[in-house]
Amino acid sequence: MKLASLRHGRDGRLCVVSRDLKTMLPVDQLMPTLQMALDSWAVAAPKLQAVSDALNKGEASGAIAFDADKLASPLPRAYQWCDGSAYLNHVELVRKARNATMPPEFLHDPLMYQGGSDDFLAPTADIPVADEAYGIDFEGEVAAITGDVAMGSSSAQAATQIRLLMLVNDVSMRNLIPAELAKGFGFFHGKPSTAFSPVAVTPDELGDAWRDAKICRPLVTHLNGRKFGEPDAGADMQFSLADLIAHAAKTRNLKAGCIVGSGTVSNRDASKGFSCLAEIRMIETISEGKPKTPFMKFGDHVRIEMFDAAGQSIFGAIDQTVVKYTGP
Amino acid sequence: MKLASLRHGRDGRLCVVSRDLKTMLPVDQLMPTLQMALDSWAVAAPKLQAVSDALNKGEASGAIAFDADKLASPLPRAYQWCDGSAYLNHVELVRKARNATMPPEFLHDPLMYQGGSDDFLAPTADIPVADEAYGIDFEGEVAAITGDVAMGSSSAQAATQIRLLMLVNDVSMRNLIPAELAKGFGFFHGKPSTAFSPVAVTPDELGDAWRDAKICRPLVTHLNGRKFGEPDAGADMQFSLADLIAHAAKTRNLKAGCIVGSGTVSNRDASKGFSCLAEIRMIETISEGKPKTPFMKFGDHVRIEMFDAAGQSIFGAIDQTVVKYTGP
Repeated sequence: MKLASLRHGRDGRLCVVSRDLKTMLPVDQLMPTLQMALDSWAVAAPKLQAVSDALNKGEASGAIAFDADKLASPLPRAYQWCDGSAYLNHVELVRKARNATMPPEFLHDPLMYQGGSDDFLAPTADIPVADEAYGIDFEGEVAAITGDVAMGSSSAQAATQIRLLMLVNDVSMRNLIPAELAKGFGFFHGKPSTAFSPVAVTPDELGDAWRDAKICRPLVTHLNGRKFGEPDAGADMQFSLADLIAHAAKTRNLKAGCIVGSGTVSNRDASKGFSCLAEIRMIETISEGKPKTPFMKFGDHVRIEMFDAAGQSIFGAIDQTVVKYTGP
Repeated sequence: MKLASLRHGRDGRLCVVSRDLKTMLPVDQLMPTLQMALDSWAVAAPKLQAVSDALNKGEASGAIAFDADKLASPLPRAYQWCDGSAYLNHVELVRKARNATMPPEFLHDPLMYQGGSDDFLAPTADIPVADEAYGIDFEGEVAAITGDVAMGSSSAQAATQIRLLMLVNDVSMRNLIPAELAKGFGFFHGKPSTAFSPVAVTPDELGDAWRDAKICRPLVTHLNGRKFGEPDAGADMQFSLADLIAHAAKTRNLKAGCIVGSGTVSNRDASKGFSCLAEIRMIETISEGKPKTPFMKFGDHVRIEMFDAAGQSIFGAIDQTVVKYTGP
């Protein structure tokens, strides 16, 4: 099934979305919010599945036209958002651009950072940034929403707790990151509010594109209306979503509604293009000595989407414009 | 007023606690959870204050005996937990132990890391750890729970959004941290589930011990029943809680229920003792060439508390024992 949250209050109003993303049905009288559904998934999921089945057959009353602009993030706020870096080509490029090699332990020990989760951007909301000099970038990723994952769970155990899948725009302020990482405590200002796809889907919706806890379809990114990349999210992924969840749970429990991201989708085949500006800038630095593609400016626009083999959008599009923030 | 959450479900049952920590009154029929109160604080706070006033006068019916063992963390799970490092003596010692000086920018640019917030430990819950070799340590801290803080807020603006104050045990796995920080993405395995004091209090409960967004009372830590430290949380604090909140909000909004911590309370006067084992081990390393105080072992016990000038416990005690985790 496919789920979304209408923009409403702090946690949205839960909707079931049809497989073809043409209609959606608010189900908040059945289950007010997605977090509440995740909190009691064993009870909630069958009820929501029944609604989904009826909606897909055109037998549900009360359905309205799907409109991503009316949607918040599937979880407008979450209790945890942690983001791995599973596509090592991305990591290797970062390092190659500064003449460093990748430590061999990176092959079995994922990079992961803890992100802020109290204020996600809606999938079509503007990205407010105070200063273009921050080095504004997008990062196209995939992510899982988990159920309860006990500390010390294996990848196989973690895989059973993958409830829903989404796309991610892990908005990044590239020029704030080097000084921040040099302080030693990881990202903070460099990773402002994140955006997710309008729709979260259960893994079965992917059919045979869901293999070994990987989403085996291209992630298509457009920058200002031009195709920027379409690397396959199932290729060159060193750590599956289940591996990343198990990594996150090594010393603590993860609780229902925890979001675990893949890191920037990146293929070794550069002809597939890219899922962030930093990567093409690294390629330019390696080949030409310096980057020529600029970071995003106010008014620039990014669209991140994934299609099934028949060309149907699976998650809806993340579709965002960078704007100048002048508050508070 | 003083608030707490009875252990119940994922988010607890909100209680008002008497100033003397002798009685508490479940108020979940008025306001089910602390998060919901924070989500609508302008409406909720006056109602809760009225209950508090009646309880403190002995005029509330339905009050029960205060029992910290029945309490979860005031927020059993939260949408954000970020932890600064405001006591620079702690930072200087860490660096001095490895013959490094503190960069001058640390005087105006706080260290801060993003913590996991989906599964806080109850204030008297055991600390489950899979392996003593992780280097188990406590960190006694103070923290604020905020309302909505707009991106780019000043310290003065942030100060107006401090709703509640708590104590913290920022449980740390010291031997996992060096390799983790060397990877560059900050803490993850090294910072498992955090614990908070049984009671969260509004700043006015501190009287004149609340000055300039600092809590000006000693933080008293006992290890296995022996006093380990009582540094003053208002002394040598380079960044106030308001400063830390403003830092956290530089590139993003913080939403109601965000918890911002001070980092380990540490005074330049070493006779005040310490709030974590790492610090005394650094002192030993500096003076004797190597640490002699061991990290915590299974069965070891830490108690963190703060008293007002009359000797009354303000927040109740964090009171935890380390146990071996054998799951999942």
